[in-house]
Amino acid sequence: MLLQVLDYLGVAVFAVAGSIVASRKGLDFIAFLFFATLTGIGGGTLRDLILGVPVFWLKSDGYLAVCLCVSIVMWFGASVVEGFGKPLRWADAVGMAAYSVMGAAKALSVGETASVAVIMGVATATFGGILRDVIAREPSAVIKSEIYLGAAFVGAGGYVALHAFGLGGWLAATAAAFLALVIRGGAIEFGWSMPGYKKS
Amino acid sequence: MLLQVLDYLGVAVFAVAGSIVASRKGLDFIAFLFFATLTGIGGGTLRDLILGVPVFWLKSDGYLAVCLCVSIVMWFGASVVEGFGKPLRWADAVGMAAYSVMGAAKALSVGETASVAVIMGVATATFGGILRDVIAREPSAVIKSEIYLGAAFVGAGGYVALHAFGLGGWLAATAAAFLALVIRGGAIEFGWSMPGYKKS
Amino acid sequence: MLLQVLDYLGVAVFAVAGSIVASRKGLDFIAFLFFATLTGIGGGTLRDLILGVPVFWLKSDGYLAVCLCVSIVMWFGASVVEGFGKPLRWADAVGMAAYSVMGAAKALSVGETASVAVIMGVATATFGGILRDVIAREPSAVIKSEIYLGAAFVGAGGYVALHAFGLGGWLAATAAAFLALVIRGGAIEFGWSMPGYKKS
Repeated sequence: MLLQVLDYLGVAVFAVAGSIVASRKGLDFIAFLFFATLTGIGGGTLRDLILGVPVFWLKSDGYLAVCLCVSIVMWFGASVVEGFGKPLRWADAVGMAAYSVMGAAKALSVGETASVAVIMGVATATFGGILRDVIAREPSAVIKSEIYLGAAFVGAGGYVALHAFGLGGWLAATAAAFLALVIRGGAIEFGWSMPGYKKS
Repeated sequence: MLLQVLDYLGVAVFAVAGSIVASRKGLDFIAFLFFATLTGIGGGTLRDLILGVPVFWLKSDGYLAVCLCVSIVMWFGASVVEGFGKPLRWADAVGMAAYSVMGAAKALSVGETASVAVIMGVATATFGGILRDVIAREPSAVIKSEIYLGAAFVGAGGYVALHAFGLGGWLAATAAAFLALVIRGGAIEFGWSMPGYKKS
Repeated sequence: MLLQVLDYLGVAVFAVAGSIVASRKGLDFIAFLFFATLTGIGGGTLRDLILGVPVFWLKSDGYLAVCLCVSIVMWFGASVVEGFGKPLRWADAVGMAAYSVMGAAKALSVGETASVAVIMGVATATFGGILRDVIAREPSAVIKSEIYLGAAFVGAGGYVALHAFGLGGWLAATAAAFLALVIRGGAIEFGWSMPGYKKS
């Protein structure tokens, strides 16, 4: 139940992010659908392939329906969404936060270790956006100085840590995702960054 | 049988497309083989991984042999092929048409729903070319204004629709693939496009 | 045992290569960890997914621990490593050599044919580096004129050939990996290349 809600949330907000990329490039509706779906289900697909479990969107048409609905809404409403200020980065942030916890939780649920769960959380949270940026020929957040990967690590690692202390479930998931979102939000709004490597 | 013929056809023409990319970059023979194989089997590999079935080219060496043969022929004959005019885009078009039907048909054959089958058709038809373009640092057809993804949708969706009306098999496959090819061909030769997103 | 040693060696040197890319871009520590892990386990992950066997780093936390340790060492020592001259290309070369044999050996160990084993060797040897370069927006060695793919083919093909003559095990693995490394080393130090395609 928890996993499913986070999955739908992650798919929906990542689909919004994908649609925004298509809209900024002035692409057609099919491209909206393509980038929405790619961003929405990309990270979770990688997670499920690596974990060796059935890919989540094969089991329920709801995920693809969400991508389709988001694409339609965004085709008519992208300019409204753009008015909110930095909507692409915030959508990516919410999707990242939800999926960092989701990826870690699903890995733990099939019996993987804590370190595998953290890596799966980060991979699930970032892969859809990376894939989209690579195909759209935009620089990925991964190679920018603002904190991005670090927030995904905190989300995944925070959930895994709370889970280890017996605090699984909604509380741990919400707390970890919220913390990841706060950190990423600080990076988006205030330019938070970690020290970069300096040649000595 | 139908699936296998479409698979070989898709692999062969995508291998031609991959070889052309290598030839235009003036790369060596091993790079011909690499790009031919990557483009030829990339889409079908993704399809089989997501569907959770054995990857098709592990079961028969014929697919890799086709990629090798195409690479050799193209190493000597790429300049002849270039004389045909837009050979890369036409090879991609034929491969896309064959694989859009093939991906959808294989998804249906393992019991997936219609919407999953359409997405698998589009993914199979486009992923090999996208991967090749990303690695070769060329802009993918996905982010150009000409119809490309839309043709793959028509091929996959057309086959799924005909199949739903009980018209599976060769007739449906040929009709859907032909329709996809006509649409993509119109885009290549006459610049057919769908309306792009306009900021309001 | 042989497979495991080669796996750890490949992961460690590819992690070094990934860290160097992060250091040259002046990224933060989390990015070191990201690129080290991506490069270190990327090729082997693709191999295991295609072969349909459990992904190797899920079964032992040692692989991820190696990536973490390498990232830490490189965070403090990257400038020392840079002093060796062309450390990125040499790390990629050693990783490529180890993984070309490793990929082929694992494919043979699960009963695949010789041609599949060669392709899996090349894919395992090159995919982690390709993925890293694509995400970091650097031109992949695959599209440069120096021999790179060819060396991976020699490593994988050499091991498969020796194995066919009954010379599996350490001797064959070491000989094939060494040969691949010599060829790639010649490309790095002396610019060895194969004839590129010339328009006629």
